[in-house]
Amino acid sequence: MAGVAASLANSISPHLKAVDELFAQELVSDLPNVNQLVTHVGKFRGKMLRPMLVLLAGQATAESPERTLTREHVTLATVVEMVHMATLVHDDILDGAEIRRRGATINHLHGNEAAVLLGDFLISHAFHLCSSLDSQDASRIIGHTTNIVCEGELTQNFNRRNWKLDEKTYYLIIYRKTAALTEACCRLGAMCSTRRPEWIEALATFGKQLGLAFQIVDDILDICGQQKLVGKSLGTDIEKGKLTLPMIHFLKHAAPQHRELLIGLLESQEHDRVERVRQLLAPSESIAYARSEAERLVSEAIRALHVLPQSEAREALMEAAHYVTVRDK
Amino acid sequence: MAGVAASLANSISPHLKAVDELFAQELVSDLPNVNQLVTHVGKFRGKMLRPMLVLLAGQATAESPERTLTREHVTLATVVEMVHMATLVHDDILDGAEIRRRGATINHLHGNEAAVLLGDFLISHAFHLCSSLDSQDASRIIGHTTNIVCEGELTQNFNRRNWKLDEKTYYLIIYRKTAALTEACCRLGAMCSTRRPEWIEALATFGKQLGLAFQIVDDILDICGQQKLVGKSLGTDIEKGKLTLPMIHFLKHAAPQHRELLIGLLESQEHDRVERVRQLLAPSESIAYARSEAERLVSEAIRALHVLPQSEAREALMEAAHYVTVRDK
Repeated sequence: MAGVAASLANSISPHLKAVDELFAQELVSDLPNVNQLVTHVGKFRGKMLRPMLVLLAGQATAESPERTLTREHVTLATVVEMVHMATLVHDDILDGAEIRRRGATINHLHGNEAAVLLGDFLISHAFHLCSSLDSQDASRIIGHTTNIVCEGELTQNFNRRNWKLDEKTYYLIIYRKTAALTEACCRLGAMCSTRRPEWIEALATFGKQLGLAFQIVDDILDICGQQKLVGKSLGTDIEKGKLTLPMIHFLKHAAPQHRELLIGLLESQEHDRVERVRQLLAPSESIAYARSEAERLVSEAIRALHVLPQSEAREALMEAAHYVTVRDK
Repeated sequence: MAGVAASLANSISPHLKAVDELFAQELVSDLPNVNQLVTHVGKFRGKMLRPMLVLLAGQATAESPERTLTREHVTLATVVEMVHMATLVHDDILDGAEIRRRGATINHLHGNEAAVLLGDFLISHAFHLCSSLDSQDASRIIGHTTNIVCEGELTQNFNRRNWKLDEKTYYLIIYRKTAALTEACCRLGAMCSTRRPEWIEALATFGKQLGLAFQIVDDILDICGQQKLVGKSLGTDIEKGKLTLPMIHFLKHAAPQHRELLIGLLESQEHDRVERVRQLLAPSESIAYARSEAERLVSEAIRALHVLPQSEAREALMEAAHYVTVRDK
């Protein structure tokens, strides 16, 4: 993401720093124990993709030539980061994950109980911060989005070990659990900058397609990635019986004996089953298929932005979208 | 609560029904699996104490002679019930509880994962519903309150197996985890009816003291209650090493050998330790002390309402407060 990083240095970096500060400031408590736990979350904060989407969407749709961002953009960028962190903390309970961004996960260090509460603490602060804005518009979008995210996670949970999961349901799940939030990020960023519905919808489409592509690549990396590079537990989809696009494609198109082999591995408790699923899928066309789907979605995301006037922020969004398909972490 | 129930029949019953309907309507999803899980929550809905507080606080502070309640009261009564249900669902994970209101708990039926997600689903819908109101005022109070509730739960979690927990920290915990929400219920109900700050503060004080008393009685019942009557798993505080007021008092005032016996039982894994703690504490002064504290708080709650003009709703609130100390479930 070097190219984007360079072109962003002067425009959104100070705002990202403001997001970091607001994030920390909002979570401060008068209780030392609460602060200690929150500090730990700060340590494995990630790529700040979602705040960046809010800020760049804001710049790309700004009506003034200076493309100035407001305090509202920073507030909403912080809100979406809190929502995202909350889902990560609760996801780690669901996945039973031990590693997240090279640090031990909250549930591994402090037990599931602290992880449940810390996720609740983050989501509560996200809503509270959002309620500090003048209008309810953002609160409504954030509330609607988190409703959908929960449904996505619930549906995913219900479909664990469902070896007949189809592509349509897979897309429903990843839209709700991932792309609904990236869509909201871009929509909110644009709404703080412009009232032109066609620009706001363009950004929303961009965010949605980007989120879908991002999740597909995440699912590919869970099978084929290198844990050292990715920095979080891999193979958790296999361990938890969560079918993802490469596996769904494989179960539909591979030779019958290969299909049976995959289901057998997914159902087994053998210690090397993750590695064996990887060896089975890596040379197949199913990984390539999933990658081509991600590329298609990224193209659609980029195409949606053509309605906007050319700007550095628009280019940065396009570059970020392109990066999604080539990332290895 | 028979007396209250009778006097309420004509005034808030239709509104409680409206709360029930709005609760169900807001949680409907286009996904059948989500609906199935949500239906299960409906089955063990409880006493509707918190919605009742919103509605009665609204009536007790209404300026018009008809004491009419608005749609806003019903909406907020539904919001607080959702918040409360979310905390119950997540509490059951923390407590490892198997029984809640005579039905199996969500975590026992569907695993911790579904319980985490269902709690998130409820809290998200609470905030989303709250954002449907015209002003952000209620969203701010709800967000602030859930921040505090999370801190209370986190502090309680940090102090598990802390046999030196003092009364001050106990009160801090129960204010945050329980009384902050009952305080918010009464404050919100009043705010929808009046702008008189002294009436709003009177209701807030009532809700706070009532919540503290309610939690103390809950903690007494966890030790001395009959599971058949109470309808939820008892002894969980003992099992989870959560010191409550009777135990804190006992550890401070009992003879040294009795103190050591209590700590020994709390630290043991013996199957009959809950029963033995009950036998140790029941005849002591510590239960009576905790009960007298609850009664003192109820008196303070009732006293706060004297600033209001006499009304059926005010009497019902006072009667409900009195009921807290005599309830056996």
